[in-house]
Amino acid sequence: MIEFEFLNEKIIEVGKKLLKWREEEFTISSKSSKHDLVTSLDLRVQEFLYNSLTQKFPEIGFLGEESGMNKKPETKGYWVIDPIDGTVNFSKMLPMFCISAAYVENDEPKYGIIYAPVMNQVIVAEENKGVFLNGEKITPNWAKVLDDAMISMGNIRGKTHKYFEALETKVMRLRLLGTAALQIAYVGTGHFDAFISVKGNSWDVAAGYIIVKEAGGIITDYYGNPTNIFNKKNLYSNPYIHEDLMKIINTIQI
Amino acid sequence: MIEFEFLNEKIIEVGKKLLKWREEEFTISSKSSKHDLVTSLDLRVQEFLYNSLTQKFPEIGFLGEESGMNKKPETKGYWVIDPIDGTVNFSKMLPMFCISAAYVENDEPKYGIIYAPVMNQVIVAEENKGVFLNGEKITPNWAKVLDDAMISMGNIRGKTHKYFEALETKVMRLRLLGTAALQIAYVGTGHFDAFISVKGNSWDVAAGYIIVKEAGGIITDYYGNPTNIFNKKNLYSNPYIHEDLMKIINTIQI
Repeated sequence: MIEFEFLNEKIIEVGKKLLKWREEEFTISSKSSKHDLVTSLDLRVQEFLYNSLTQKFPEIGFLGEESGMNKKPETKGYWVIDPIDGTVNFSKMLPMFCISAAYVENDEPKYGIIYAPVMNQVIVAEENKGVFLNGEKITPNWAKVLDDAMISMGNIRGKTHKYFEALETKVMRLRLLGTAALQIAYVGTGHFDAFISVKGNSWDVAAGYIIVKEAGGIITDYYGNPTNIFNKKNLYSNPYIHEDLMKIINTIQI
Repeated sequence: MIEFEFLNEKIIEVGKKLLKWREEEFTISSKSSKHDLVTSLDLRVQEFLYNSLTQKFPEIGFLGEESGMNKKPETKGYWVIDPIDGTVNFSKMLPMFCISAAYVENDEPKYGIIYAPVMNQVIVAEENKGVFLNGEKITPNWAKVLDDAMISMGNIRGKTHKYFEALETKVMRLRLLGTAALQIAYVGTGHFDAFISVKGNSWDVAAGYIIVKEAGGIITDYYGNPTNIFNKKNLYSNPYIHEDLMKIINTIQI
């Protein structure tokens, strides 16, 4: 679709700009709590995308993490944008962050793109068309059993250790990269076998959601129920380990 | 020194080769335990470096992770090489891995280079000459208090959650990237404020050791004592938080 091609162009364009902007000066401030950070560049990227997308496609709504734009639009179709996912990493000049954008219709993601500019990874999925990493169609090479699996998760202050305690001897490795959107997308590409979202917002997960789905992954809440991008606690898993992973998650007293 | 320039050249050369080799076929096997992996490319990189370095400088010993070369050489000066640090990440096609090489004299690292080829980061330090990231001299922008700090650690099966439990409400963020050498180097560059090694071998830490030292970081064992690259449990910390971090680590029953 013409909309998705335009989105891709703009995401790549602003991602490359972002690398330049980061070399210049930017400011860091707190949002809901001392440890919830936002930079001036989160706002600048979102503004760029808001202006580009709404000017070109005024009929498509806009949901973005920053500037009070995080309410679900009334329109049938809308963009869901995280201008910088992994803001804390970004503010420490780490490579692990991405721009995440999805097109959502009737609350179902139809298209998603994740761009990690330092690592030069573009991960894209469209409904019924599969997953592409840097233009190449991906067939994920997933672990068949939990004991061989590489699992990643989000950060939930004061409770992360409970997930680690339950999981760390049951899986091959646990990872905490500090960028939910990228870690979910990595399930779709086969880099990871699962991602456990612990407090995911729609802008963190919408692009990854369709990427995992298109890869043949399973997405449910912690109890195996159908879910959506607005549920904060989901499992994004390869199909082989989903059941076993869920059983362990359900032993955790959170 | 001519030796270090030659080392740099060879590390960059083999890092670029490694990216090509990874696109072709490689095999994965287990070493000391089911979860301790090695790939055919770990061996290939080490062989390349062993041949290049010992041919050119036969008087300098060689200590490498693989192929039974992990004994300390008898020579005064020796190379300490991890051909792929973050092998499990590498085997899952993740970007977070590096080649780590150090020159050590009288058991003290004098020079270190870390090359993360996917992320295009070359981190170098030489005794009394400071730290360079991609050729630019670095002054790390470290957190002044633990509550603002980004801490990373290694993976120690069955015990990682204890570190998380003790630390996760006391620091800004915890990270587990799955490559010790890179995470130590990131303390020297200021990307991280500390790295906690939980079972570090000399090849995992030697390059990072001199990088952190040259950046003005503090390296001790868990109790504040002077240490060296052969001690498996060290703290690599920015100087502002070292004392507070140590106090917390000492509350952990490991």
